[in-house]
Amino acid sequence: MIGFIAAILTTLSFVPQAWQIIKTKDTSGISLGMYAMFVVGVFLWLIHGWNIQDYAVIAANGITLVLASIILAYKIKYK
Amino acid sequence: MIGFIAAILTTLSFVPQAWQIIKTKDTSGISLGMYAMFVVGVFLWLIHGWNIQDYAVIAANGITLVLASIILAYKIKYK
Repeated sequence: MIGFIAAILTTLSFVPQAWQIIKTKDTSGISLGMYAMFVVGVFLWLIHGWNIQDYAVIAANGITLVLASIILAYKIKYK
Repeated sequence: MIGFIAAILTTLSFVPQAWQIIKTKDTSGISLGMYAMFVVGVFLWLIHGWNIQDYAVIAANGITLVLASIILAYKIKYK
């Protein structure tokens, strides 16, 4: 149960960040390096989840990948 | 192997963000909501890792917890 709640929190935590960045377009404090590394890492988690056929890992990282990619795209566009 | 690389990338991705925020103290683009949720989520992952005695989960989330807590503390201090 704790792992499930942990996954929900760490996955959905990117929603307020994506929402804020879409609304304000303020990306000054955000690290391009972080989100570049993080997006690649989450993509690899997605592949790992597929390899071990773990749908929780696939779902959590699929959602996180979309959110983190939005943040990365805004950071690149509105440096 | 892919899971290991994914864990390294997603864990260490918080280093450039923590470094940037310590150096610039610019937290304007960072979401307080994200890091509050994320720190709690990572803390629960740490407990989950301990419960299942998985040292990779413990190590990765222990490091992430320290880095994310630094970012959260700077965000609270330098809103």
